[in-house]
Amino acid sequence: MSEIIVFRYGHRDVRDYRVTSHCALVSRAFGATSIIICGNKDEKVTNTLKGVTKRWGGKFKVKFVKTWEKELANLKKKGFVLVHLTMYGEMIQNVDKKIGKNDKICIIIGSRKVESGIYEISDYNVSVTNQPHSEIAALSVCLDRIQNGNELKLEFSGAERKIIPKKQGKEVIPLK
Amino acid sequence: MSEIIVFRYGHRDVRDYRVTSHCALVSRAFGATSIIICGNKDEKVTNTLKGVTKRWGGKFKVKFVKTWEKELANLKKKGFVLVHLTMYGEMIQNVDKKIGKNDKICIIIGSRKVESGIYEISDYNVSVTNQPHSEIAALSVCLDRIQNGNELKLEFSGAERKIIPKKQGKEVIPLK
Repeated sequence: MSEIIVFRYGHRDVRDYRVTSHCALVSRAFGATSIIICGNKDEKVTNTLKGVTKRWGGKFKVKFVKTWEKELANLKKKGFVLVHLTMYGEMIQNVDKKIGKNDKICIIIGSRKVESGIYEISDYNVSVTNQPHSEIAALSVCLDRIQNGNELKLEFSGAERKIIPKKQGKEVIPLK
Repeated sequence: MSEIIVFRYGHRDVRDYRVTSHCALVSRAFGATSIIICGNKDEKVTNTLKGVTKRWGGKFKVKFVKTWEKELANLKKKGFVLVHLTMYGEMIQNVDKKIGKNDKICIIIGSRKVESGIYEISDYNVSVTNQPHSEIAALSVCLDRIQNGNELKLEFSGAERKIIPKKQGKEVIPLK
């Protein structure tokens, strides 16, 4: 599977905590190794993810940066293909297979208005429908498609517990 | 394509506005005909969706209900298959094709703890990974999979504008 990093553009403050947390949790659950959040440092997001990773496993990392320019240029230099999700971009169903073939992928998600430089530095500008909806939805559908559903079978190392999928009710087994 | 309704369980108040709005916007963009929100009436959600539907088209509806029991029983009586998304359920990759064959589908998404009656009344309890993440992500991946990607090609009638998908930049054309 590809190495995937998610880049979240435009986290402001406490108002954004829940949506940014959802983005980070989806990144982790769908197999990304880390999320880089561009905006004001928010320990609450970091702590939420630390707690989830402790209980449910894996090595997911959260990092905050102040500006996007240097960070995205660095990722590009390291060989990451930059994929910017935007309702204006080309249709995901036309490029998902091609994007998924890359070894290193950085998915960029915005919230409000995104600077034009993000469109320009990106190797792909990709839409998940051309309708307004949710960066969390765009991210998850993109991650599911470029990994061809393989992220749904991931096991997380070092977890304290594990869910046994069931048609009815809940079954959680302790692992430690 | 199937007729799809989304049922959102557990909207409380202003804290939930953004996440519930994302759920509603995803439902609309991914081809559901309406969202039924169980919880406290929130005009802000209704107005956000009215505005989006006016500009971007379609006939999407938002409805609030106080309790889930009668509503879900009614949908079942009308022939809707109830699909409850939960991290404890059986794996989506094993049931997506089967679910997608139904003419009428109601997708149930919770937020916090969901009453056990929801598990029992549902025809399917389905997980999108068995990791904690986001009901917005689970909803979007489920809608993409059960419709086999056909929702990505939807056109919305009566829109004031339309996006022309582009590799770079933005192109929006007026339709009225």
